[in-house]
Amino acid sequence: DELNSKSYNVPLIENFKIIERPADQTTITKRFSKKVIELVHQYKEDNFFIYLAHSLPHIPLYASVEFLGKSKRGLYGDVIEEIDFGVGQILTELKKLKLEKNTIVVFTSDNGPWLTYKTHGGSAGLLRNGKGTTWEGGMRVPAIFWGAGIVSKSVNEMGSTLDLYPTFMSISNISYKDDNKLDGVDLSEVLFNNGSSTREIMPFYNGSELYAFRYKNYKLHLKTSSWFSKVETHDPPMLFDLEIDPSEKYNISEDNPEKINEILKIVKIHKEKIVYGDDQLESRD
Amino acid sequence: DELNSKSYNVPLIENFKIIERPADQTTITKRFSKKVIELVHQYKEDNFFIYLAHSLPHIPLYASVEFLGKSKRGLYGDVIEEIDFGVGQILTELKKLKLEKNTIVVFTSDNGPWLTYKTHGGSAGLLRNGKGTTWEGGMRVPAIFWGAGIVSKSVNEMGSTLDLYPTFMSISNISYKDDNKLDGVDLSEVLFNNGSSTREIMPFYNGSELYAFRYKNYKLHLKTSSWFSKVETHDPPMLFDLEIDPSEKYNISEDNPEKINEILKIVKIHKEKIVYGDDQLESRD
Repeated sequence: DELNSKSYNVPLIENFKIIERPADQTTITKRFSKKVIELVHQYKEDNFFIYLAHSLPHIPLYASVEFLGKSKRGLYGDVIEEIDFGVGQILTELKKLKLEKNTIVVFTSDNGPWLTYKTHGGSAGLLRNGKGTTWEGGMRVPAIFWGAGIVSKSVNEMGSTLDLYPTFMSISNISYKDDNKLDGVDLSEVLFNNGSSTREIMPFYNGSELYAFRYKNYKLHLKTSSWFSKVETHDPPMLFDLEIDPSEKYNISEDNPEKINEILKIVKIHKEKIVYGDDQLESRD
Repeated sequence: DELNSKSYNVPLIENFKIIERPADQTTITKRFSKKVIELVHQYKEDNFFIYLAHSLPHIPLYASVEFLGKSKRGLYGDVIEEIDFGVGQILTELKKLKLEKNTIVVFTSDNGPWLTYKTHGGSAGLLRNGKGTTWEGGMRVPAIFWGAGIVSKSVNEMGSTLDLYPTFMSISNISYKDDNKLDGVDLSEVLFNNGSSTREIMPFYNGSELYAFRYKNYKLHLKTSSWFSKVETHDPPMLFDLEIDPSEKYNISEDNPEKINEILKIVKIHKEKIVYGDDQLESRD
């Protein structure tokens, strides 16, 4: 039943305490949005950082009665419209509290659609493949920045969630020891000054193994796999020009051995420079 | 050479007379745009209908020196930007002559990308397949209506170039004997009154053989083929919900036998009602 999520015995946790089990997922989206508004009110005189990680639209999908069956896009669309409605409420509240001039709201995603679940998994549009792969459909997601005087415009610059930390530090004028361990770049020139992103590369890892590597408009695939399927190694690597071919349809490696060598040299520099963090999977309880 | 189109011995014809051979295709786009502006000036006091069918971006692609290498999307993008520039010039001229209030400009395409030519063939974005097929990538194209007080908005209603004639007749208040032979519908409610399209069906033929049939948000495939490849017959037909699945990825025929029967009945009515025109391929010289 679409209005009953009780068959999934998942907990709702607040400050390390289970406050509801099974969590009622049909109302979880609007409750998360409401909680954020409460937190904004609570900390409005202070500096605050809120990370709202909606559990939906991860499958199984649920929407509240107000949104169920209302969108043109089926249940997935209903869920998205409820999330969108909550974002609207949050923005309205920030404006009401006159916080929109010194608050930045970032809306983005962690990965592309889980294609196994078909129309319940979302869509990557024209991008190839989806979640669990290093194709664009798995890795490239939209990002919207709002507030703090950011002017409405659409940009096609390269950025990553890795860049949020250096960007926020820069905007907040907080100095920190840049000992070259950060993988992010400061995106504030793109956000505030119509500048270009200083991000020229983007490595795509599976665990600690490099699968693909973006350099400017080019993307090199050393290995590829679909969700849980056999890994294919490409020698020579596959090469795509994402500016002309964002769908990664046309492998141009055969005609561009020099470009491949150029990128492989940059990959080598990247690997030499990278400082590995602790493996948090190993160290957890 | 991208600046020399002489190896294609194609004629440029004006009023049944060959005026240039081989036609210089590197400048053909801007010359077509310029010609339209001349015609607008010539007929500005009169009623006029101009059909500007740019020969580009059909392959082989050419752009003039002013546009070659200027776009982010390679040669195909250069060609599109030159066409777009010409459209801009035409709109500017219409405004200058104060004709924009009673002139409608329609920008659309006859088919999707010719995928064989890869990045030179264009892209259907998230739509499946391309030209020469009855998948959405071959048949569904953007259409922009401008002028005559049409307000800027984006609509997701069904329309066809078949509808242009009835729509123009309606807008012009020209009465004609509607003896039910026309396949088009009047779209003026969509253009001027935020109304819905009265088009509920769209048949997709290969010659006189019905391959696919759109009914509201559903599309039924009786036969499919890729460009020049073997035809596949589907029994039961394939069924897609284009509102949820515009990429035609998820065939839902198995779970929807009743919907298929409903649509097949509408197909039957369509076939009984259709009045075949003369075969113009048979009768030509």
